[in-house]
This record gives sequence, C-alpha cells and structure tokens, in this order.
Amino acid sequence: MIEGRDVLKVIEAMTPLYVALGLGYGSVRWWHVFTREQCEAINRVVVYFAIPFFTFEFTSHLDPFTMNYRVIAADAISKLLTVAVLAAWTWCSSSAKSSYSWAITIFSLSQLSNILVVGAPLLDAMYGRWAQDIIVQLSVVQIIAWMALLLFALEMRKARGAASFAPATVVAGAGGQMVAPEPQQAMDVECNTDAAARPTLGSLMKTVWLKLALNPNIYASVLGVIWALVANRWHFEMPRIIEGSVLVMSKTGTGMSMFSMGMFMALQDKIVACGPKLSAFGMVLKFIAGPAATAISAVSVGLRGDLLRVAIIQAALPQSISSFIFAREYGLHPGVLSTAVIFGTLVSLPVLIAYYEVLGLLS
Amino acid sequence: MIEGRDVLKVIEAMTPLYVALGLGYGSVRWWHVFTREQCEAINRVVVYFAIPFFTFEFTSHLDPFTMNYRVIAADAISKLLTVAVLAAWTWCSSSAKSSYSWAITIFSLSQLSNILVVGAPLLDAMYGRWAQDIIVQLSVVQIIAWMALLLFALEMRKARGAASFAPATVVAGAGGQMVAPEPQQAMDVECNTDAAARPTLGSLMKTVWLKLALNPNIYASVLGVIWALVANRWHFEMPRIIEGSVLVMSKTGTGMSMFSMGMFMALQDKIVACGPKLSAFGMVLKFIAGPAATAISAVSVGLRGDLLRVAIIQAALPQSISSFIFAREYGLHPGVLSTAVIFGTLVSLPVLIAYYEVLGLLS
Repeated sequence: MIEGRDVLKVIEAMTPLYVALGLGYGSVRWWHVFTREQCEAINRVVVYFAIPFFTFEFTSHLDPFTMNYRVIAADAISKLLTVAVLAAWTWCSSSAKSSYSWAITIFSLSQLSNILVVGAPLLDAMYGRWAQDIIVQLSVVQIIAWMALLLFALEMRKARGAASFAPATVVAGAGGQMVAPEPQQAMDVECNTDAAARPTLGSLMKTVWLKLALNPNIYASVLGVIWALVANRWHFEMPRIIEGSVLVMSKTGTGMSMFSMGMFMALQDKIVACGPKLSAFGMVLKFIAGPAATAISAVSVGLRGDLLRVAIIQAALPQSISSFIFAREYGLHPGVLSTAVIFGTLVSLPVLIAYYEVLGLLS
Repeated sequence: MIEGRDVLKVIEAMTPLYVALGLGYGSVRWWHVFTREQCEAINRVVVYFAIPFFTFEFTSHLDPFTMNYRVIAADAISKLLTVAVLAAWTWCSSSAKSSYSWAITIFSLSQLSNILVVGAPLLDAMYGRWAQDIIVQLSVVQIIAWMALLLFALEMRKARGAASFAPATVVAGAGGQMVAPEPQQAMDVECNTDAAARPTLGSLMKTVWLKLALNPNIYASVLGVIWALVANRWHFEMPRIIEGSVLVMSKTGTGMSMFSMGMFMALQDKIVACGPKLSAFGMVLKFIAGPAATAISAVSVGLRGDLLRVAIIQAALPQSISSFIFAREYGLHPGVLSTAVIFGTLVSLPVLIAYYEVLGLLS
C-alpha cells in the first residue's frame, strides 16, 4: 500500500528536474537570456560532456557479476516481442515502405525511455537504491544494444531508399531546431549522392559501427562497462582523482540536460507538434502499450513483487531524448517524437505516480 | 608537518577543477565543438544560473550565529589596510586620475579571490569541513561588501571622467571576448552621453545599487544570508523539495564554471595578455602582497594555528572572475585582470601547495 509520504518522496525527487526544465524554458521564452544559436551550445555541452560523463559515472559503478538478469531478460523479451509484432505487420502490410518507417517509430515510442536522467532518481525515491541499480543496468542495455538496433534499422531504411531528408551528421542533441512541424511522410526520394548503388550489408554495418563509435553516450557506456568488469573482477576501486574528475562533469548531467530540454520546449511553436490524433497515439504507445508488453514479459519470466513493479514503471518513463535525436537526423516522424519527449515528460509525473499507486495495491 | 598524503588529498581535490577547465579549453581549441558566440552561451548559463545557485546553496547553509568573526575581521583589516595605503598613494601621486585607476586594479589583484569555486574544495581537503565553512563566510563578505565597494569605486572613476570605453551593461561573464589585448591607458575622454553633467553622489549610489540588485550572484548571496538568518533563528530546515531544486542547478556550478573558464582561455590569443612585466606584477600582488597583508592582519587580531593558516591561504587563491568581468565592463586594465585569472589559476596549485607546506612547518 502506497501512503501519502511515499508519494511525497517521489514528488520531492522529481520536482528538481522540472525546476531545471522550467529555468531552461524561462531563460529562452521569458527572460531572453539566450539566442537560438546559443541554445544549440547548451545542447552540445549536454550531448558531448554532461550526459556522457553522467552515463559513465553510473555505468562504472555497476557490478556486472551481480546484475539482475531476470529483469533484463523481461525487458529484452518485451522489446523482442514488439519487434516481432511490428515485423509481422510490416510483412503483411500492402505498403511495406511506409509500414517499415512506422514500425521504427512505434518501437521508439513504446520501448525507448529517458531511463537514466529521470529513471534513476525516480526509482530510487520509489523503491530504494536497489531499484536504481536495476535502472542503471537496463540503461546500459538500452544504450548499447537497443539504440544500436534502432540506428541499424534507420540506416537500413535509408539504404532501402525509403526516405532521407536530413544529412546524416554526427549526432546532435535535443536543444536544436525541429526539422518539421508536421510528421514527414515517407517519400520515395533518395537525397544521398550515392543513391544509385545500394549499399551492401557490410557497408551498412560499417556506417552503423562508425556512428556508434562517434556517439559520445554509447562510448561512455561501453567504457563504463569495461571499467566495471575490470574493477569487479580484480577488486579494485577507482582512484579518487579519476572519480573526482568524472564527478565534476557528471554532476552537471541532470541539471544541464533538463535545462536543455526546457530550452528545446521553449523553441517550439507549440508543445504538441504533430496534431492531437498522433499525439494521443504516441501517448498510448508510451504509457500503456509499452508498460503492458513489459508487464506480460515480466510475469512470463516469473518476476513478482517489487521487481515486477520496477520493471513496469521503468517502461512508463518519458520518451528517450536520443530517440528524438535519431528521428530528426533521419527525418523520420520527428514531430511525433518531439511531442512524445515534450508532452510525455510533462505528463509523466502524474502518470508514473498513478502507476506507483495502482501497482502498490497489487500484493 | 604536512605529509605526502596530505598533499595528495589537495591534488585530488583540485585536479577535477583542472579537468573541467581542460575540457572547456579543448572543446574550443582542439575539438571545435563550439563557435565563439556559443561560448558566450555557456558563460551565461554560468553567470545567471550555475554560480548564483551554487552561491545560494553554500550561503544558505551558513550559521550566522556561529560565524568566525575573528577571521572575517582579519580579512577586513587586511583589505582596509590595502585601501588606506592605496588611497594615500593616490593622494600623493602627481597624476591622481591614473593612480586612482591603478589603485582599483591593485586592490582587485591583491584582495579579491575566486573564493568559493576553488577555495571551498581546496580548504576542505587541506584542513577539513570547518575550514570550508570559514571560506563560505568570507565569500559572503567578499560578494556582498567588497564587490560592492569595487563597483562603487569603478562607478566613481567613471563619473570623474577618468575613462569609459565599454558600455555599462548588465554584468556579463568570463567566457566572452576581451576588450583589448594590452591594458588600456586611462584616457580623459568621456563616452557617456550624459558626460556634461557630473552625477551627484546620490545618482552614483543609485547606479551602484541598481547594478548590485541586477547582479545574480549578489542577489543569491543576500537571499542565502536571509534564509540562513531566518532558518537558524527559528530552527527549521529547508524543505527537501526546495533543497533539491537548488541542488539540481548548484551541482552544475563547479563543473560549468571551470569549463567556461577553459573556454575563455581558449578564446584568448595568448595566455599572458598584458606583457611579462605587468603579469609578474599581478602575480606578486596576488600570491605575495595579498597573503602578506592578510598574515599581518591575522596575527594582529590574534589568530594562531590552523585559523591563521586558513586566513593566509584563502588570500592566495586565484583571481576572482567577477573582478575581471568588472574590469572588462569598465574598460579598466582588462588585460592585466584576464592574465591574473588565467595564469593565476594555472599556477595557483603549486603555489597553494607550497603555502600549505611552508605554513605546516610553523608550529
């Protein structure tokens, strides 16, 4: 049974994130402290410095030998289930190209969440430190495995000539401009100069690997895991001088990334960038379909009690910012994803508390 | 007697600051992540958000009823002594205007240090938490009293028509461009449109008050002191929701401000912007004259042991960034101050460790 003070603890943990978000919003919309180009600078600090250090800090403190593989399995089954359903739908669909594009977006919406920045403090407040550890474990898998899969699917789509509007530059961030106010329709136009020759699977993999290697957050995650493996295998601690040097930047992670998201919101003409129907569709995928899929998988692998609750709640966390960044980069429904990030983040607090209350009633 | 591990502790505490500084430098000079205008954005985040929250966080946890007034008195006597000597020198000087300008700069160089960002972790590592508390107390006095005095002196100089190059806008920050590579000579040119009418002392005070009220750091300091007074008088704690909301931004303070200083260094053509002679003069004032004046005052008010050591070491902290910002704003020797900030910060670690070692030898 969840009591009033449990909810208060959650609100206490989440309010600071919204305060940072509000300051970012106000600094652009009300106080005019930053120009549009300057917002991009804050975004870059977040993408290249604050978040990678933040991710490394969390990941490097994992103990890979005591990870909760059952929760990770539940999460993986839920995602594979979604992939299977979407693949079947694309296979049967009359317009395979458009369905493939939507399959990617639906996967993003239902399965990729802003797991570390929002999830870590939230789950810690709800269930304690062990729940935060699980969140960190899931975030590593999300960053290394599922983001890589998403990138692969997007490159595949581009190679198949589904559509390619934006140049595929090095990953940008959440504070920039949106590509389009309405979701892009799939177009059978290939903008790349090398469109004539279809890339082989080998060259496709190379592109994906290169992008992954250049993505500072994946980089940080892999380094963190390597460190965690080595440190836990041979039982040594990170020297305090390195620990401190990582902390000095990682401590800016939460504040700066929420601040940057606030700026991003302020730069949009409207919070709901893709029409009410698509927004509602996105919210249903995010807050109902995703958690439902995870709940089924979690029960099927035998998760019970608080572990089950943590697995479900992490699936209902607001939309991953990285998934929007990729959507913008590949010109695939960026309006839908931006709405999911913005609107989803704003409504997530009551939704997550409702989940917390309802799940607390289950014995 | 200072042992090797004591020094190691200090190096451990300071290295993270230099790492953040190096990342800021590298992001501009080597990796070209930011354009010049974008650097200004980082500077603004620091000046308007990170540092004010950082200052408020420290200040609000003061206990104004158990402050170490003897250390504060020692610091105040040292500063008043400096003011008296400089006033006498200006009085006797043949070129009163130029000496008045130099008196302000000499006061800045010898007495205003980057007390909170660098001082708090350093003194904590050297002597423990009580020393950090003293640093916070001294920083409040520096921000509220001595920065106000500096501003008053600068406005006075401007009103007397000594020189005025830069428009007196709201305080900018450390990441922007320098006004001039060489120290400005005092010019008998008044650029203000209202130069014809000399402002009265009343209007001067009004300008100073307005500037102080618009300075986010002074604002934060005053609010922090008010909070500390109220909370300690009626014995209540800051609600966790407010504490967390302050922390989410204040935690970005150290990292972002050192990062921004690194960017500022990278934007300069050379680290020593004002010629070797003036630089050496600045360093002598900063690292020898200032601490010497404080040492004399501290002994005269009866400070002994670790309290004396803390008083001397805080006087040898690197140059205050705010003092450079003011220098740039009023066009008063910005090259000298920028060199003191940059070069001073770089050489301060060995200088401060030397002070720590030598002072440790005194019984």
